[in-house]
Amino acid sequence: MLNERLPSRLLENAVEEFAKLPGIGRKSALRLVLYLLRCEESEVEDFGNAIIQLRKEVMHCKICHNISDTDTCSICTNPSRDESIVCVVENIRDVMSIENTNQFRGLYHVLGGIISPMDGIGPGNLEIESLVRRVAEGNIGEIILALSTTMEGDTTNFYIYKKLKDSGVKITTIARGVSVGGEIEYTDEITLGRSILNRLNFSDTFNQ
Amino acid sequence: MLNERLPSRLLENAVEEFAKLPGIGRKSALRLVLYLLRCEESEVEDFGNAIIQLRKEVMHCKICHNISDTDTCSICTNPSRDESIVCVVENIRDVMSIENTNQFRGLYHVLGGIISPMDGIGPGNLEIESLVRRVAEGNIGEIILALSTTMEGDTTNFYIYKKLKDSGVKITTIARGVSVGGEIEYTDEITLGRSILNRLNFSDTFNQ
Repeated sequence: MLNERLPSRLLENAVEEFAKLPGIGRKSALRLVLYLLRCEESEVEDFGNAIIQLRKEVMHCKICHNISDTDTCSICTNPSRDESIVCVVENIRDVMSIENTNQFRGLYHVLGGIISPMDGIGPGNLEIESLVRRVAEGNIGEIILALSTTMEGDTTNFYIYKKLKDSGVKITTIARGVSVGGEIEYTDEITLGRSILNRLNFSDTFNQ
Repeated sequence: MLNERLPSRLLENAVEEFAKLPGIGRKSALRLVLYLLRCEESEVEDFGNAIIQLRKEVMHCKICHNISDTDTCSICTNPSRDESIVCVVENIRDVMSIENTNQFRGLYHVLGGIISPMDGIGPGNLEIESLVRRVAEGNIGEIILALSTTMEGDTTNFYIYKKLKDSGVKITTIARGVSVGGEIEYTDEITLGRSILNRLNFSDTFNQ
């Protein structure tokens, strides 16, 4: 619909750049660019520079591969966190989701993706070897696998399990079951079936 | 949900900047920023610089106030356009929508908004005086009012009409009626009522 009709090359450039972002088409891109045009010049500079600076200067924690401003992230260097439990997640958004629960005081290991042959992502593209090395150092007592409950997540879980099963570390995975506030009637059969198989002692749930 | 939990100040900055854009919340902002982190450094620089450069260098056409790379836009300088008809629109997106119809070969006048007391936008904030001056120069035979069919659009139409009615210029407005492909049953009463009042000679529609 908005094909090659932009009256300005500068505008065209900016719209094209925005339209490269995931989930933003040319129409949304134009709306965003026109918004920026109405902002102060200094605000727009701050916007552009924040992104350029982030890409240039951001680092990944050398221990857990989380995004960080320094070579070791604020979670790995926090002395009040429990170093003996490591939660394996796909990406930094998952770290933040788990942090927001306030239920986990251990450390993380960010894989940077999950095994997905369809997308050309194999174990070699992920931070699995570094996880094996972390476990081999001997300070870790438990690995919690917190990957998506999809085919790819299950494959990755199993791959990591095979790599670690002889190391003596305890390997757990997050519970699958009926979500809190969820109705039995509308829960899918597989989830409901698993929630029955993995049922809990009622008295264990009192303090949760 | 994602409150103050970002592990990096650089990331936090970039997410904050994105979240200022209309229609983008912190969660979408984070998704976009993480996407940019996976891009090449040069691509991210192109992105940031395209926006900064646009804001710094873009101009507004001194005749129609459309966005332009030069002081007079490509529509106003195009000798094949009909200078005697000027279409008054709210913003540059409307210019592009009308250009995409390929039905209009005249020039434009971009108001930069519509009268909206609720948003603090009065006639003085819009390019209405410059429209009156354009008309006073005497080369314009017809002004087409192409504003939104809202209360604000109608108010602005009427304000412009009052300003121009003594100038002798013909003032028209775009037709309101049942949209092409629209069903009578589902058209609102006001639109359907207007479409009956403003009915056309059937033979006039043969060549449209």
